[in-house]
Amino acid sequence: MQDLTIVKVGGKVVEEADSLSGLLNDFVSLPSPKILVHGGGRSATSVAARLGIETKMVEGRRITDSEMLEVVTMVYGGLVNKGVVSGMQARGCNALGMTGADMNIIQSVKRTNSAIDYGFVGDIKEVNANAIDALLKAGVVPVIAPLTHDGNGQLLNTNADTMASAVASAMSALYRVTLVFCFELPGVLKDIDDPGSVISTITPDVYENLKRDGIVADGMIPKLDNSFDALKKGVFQIKITNTAGLASPSAGTVLKL
Amino acid sequence: MQDLTIVKVGGKVVEEADSLSGLLNDFVSLPSPKILVHGGGRSATSVAARLGIETKMVEGRRITDSEMLEVVTMVYGGLVNKGVVSGMQARGCNALGMTGADMNIIQSVKRTNSAIDYGFVGDIKEVNANAIDALLKAGVVPVIAPLTHDGNGQLLNTNADTMASAVASAMSALYRVTLVFCFELPGVLKDIDDPGSVISTITPDVYENLKRDGIVADGMIPKLDNSFDALKKGVFQIKITNTAGLASPSAGTVLKL
Repeated sequence: MQDLTIVKVGGKVVEEADSLSGLLNDFVSLPSPKILVHGGGRSATSVAARLGIETKMVEGRRITDSEMLEVVTMVYGGLVNKGVVSGMQARGCNALGMTGADMNIIQSVKRTNSAIDYGFVGDIKEVNANAIDALLKAGVVPVIAPLTHDGNGQLLNTNADTMASAVASAMSALYRVTLVFCFELPGVLKDIDDPGSVISTITPDVYENLKRDGIVADGMIPKLDNSFDALKKGVFQIKITNTAGLASPSAGTVLKL
Repeated sequence: MQDLTIVKVGGKVVEEADSLSGLLNDFVSLPSPKILVHGGGRSATSVAARLGIETKMVEGRRITDSEMLEVVTMVYGGLVNKGVVSGMQARGCNALGMTGADMNIIQSVKRTNSAIDYGFVGDIKEVNANAIDALLKAGVVPVIAPLTHDGNGQLLNTNADTMASAVASAMSALYRVTLVFCFELPGVLKDIDDPGSVISTITPDVYENLKRDGIVADGMIPKLDNSFDALKKGVFQIKITNTAGLASPSAGTVLKL
């Protein structure tokens, strides 16, 4: 099976010119085929504030009413996505910006089974692996914004980590997939104040211990739950690192079953 | 040669829910292959105003400083484009939203040869007909927002009429191209107050007379100049009509050499 690398980058990395430039330089050096999935929450919050729209978050998730949906459609699908695409093209990488609606690559259903009304937020129903594969075979690098659609004309805000995992799981039917979660720290740290304390490997047993000892907490828990779920669905390996660790096989934390 | 239809729709058509829905119903009924090029100026002006950014127009063209470039990237590439794409997908049409940067389909150069500093505005340098053709052959319907890039990472605001003409000219090497300019009126009218007075055919001689008599004036002149230029570059025919005239071969005004 051919290797495929899927990199998820958080908002902070793509929203600042310096870190975006670093990411792009590292990303384009990765062998193809590859896919980038990006966030953009900080910019969405900032644009919303400038428009006089208040951002409401519950458990780290954005409440997306119709006004906020317009904001994230503008920011994720337009501002952030096209900035990344033009930066990749400048580096000779044939990027194509997409949401889940484009070529119908990712369909979702509006979340209704929750005690909290998140508004126009989608839970992924189906990833069109064949459509994505056709692009990869044509030498295209999909750059995916965290928006999906319900197939009835409704765009839905969708968590970028979840999208990256779902795409990785679906593409595992066709490729040996490495999913890289790229954020500010060099990996999962034993001591949050010591960047040198990267835990090299986390298995489910190690994960239980890390949670019990409070070393892994808060926002890291859904990320790791999500990752182990993807591994169970056939993803070959998952790596957690920063942009500097993207190109280095030995950097970061590797999750495996 | 196979037929290809390229439809350009103005901002007003795609920015209001009712007219957008009408357009999408008519557009999806057209035979494939086909391409949509859209505007979005009214939404850009409205979002800019809400952000406290003043819109400056010179001879109908938007002055695009770096703040305004962010606005048009959000509005054209995000809000308008993804609304059209999700609406097409809901109608079973395999739309893919793109700017000129995506798959490097349209490169431009920043306009510097003008007495007026338009800012981040691009004049088209090259249309990648083969990249667009590959998408059409795969059954994809490109939905193109009026943004291009310079190949060095800079997005540029680009006139949608000009983009549609340039894409039509480039695709004429591979297809028999009909370019449809779709706006609010049923065609070019002899009497602006009489929607029944559509001029069925305009040749260069007729055009000179219409200009001399003041029947064609203002914003219509660059549109028609642009159209005759595209015909000279090999476009098979150009039609000017409203969304209702899209599906009807006899509706609207046809331009020919």
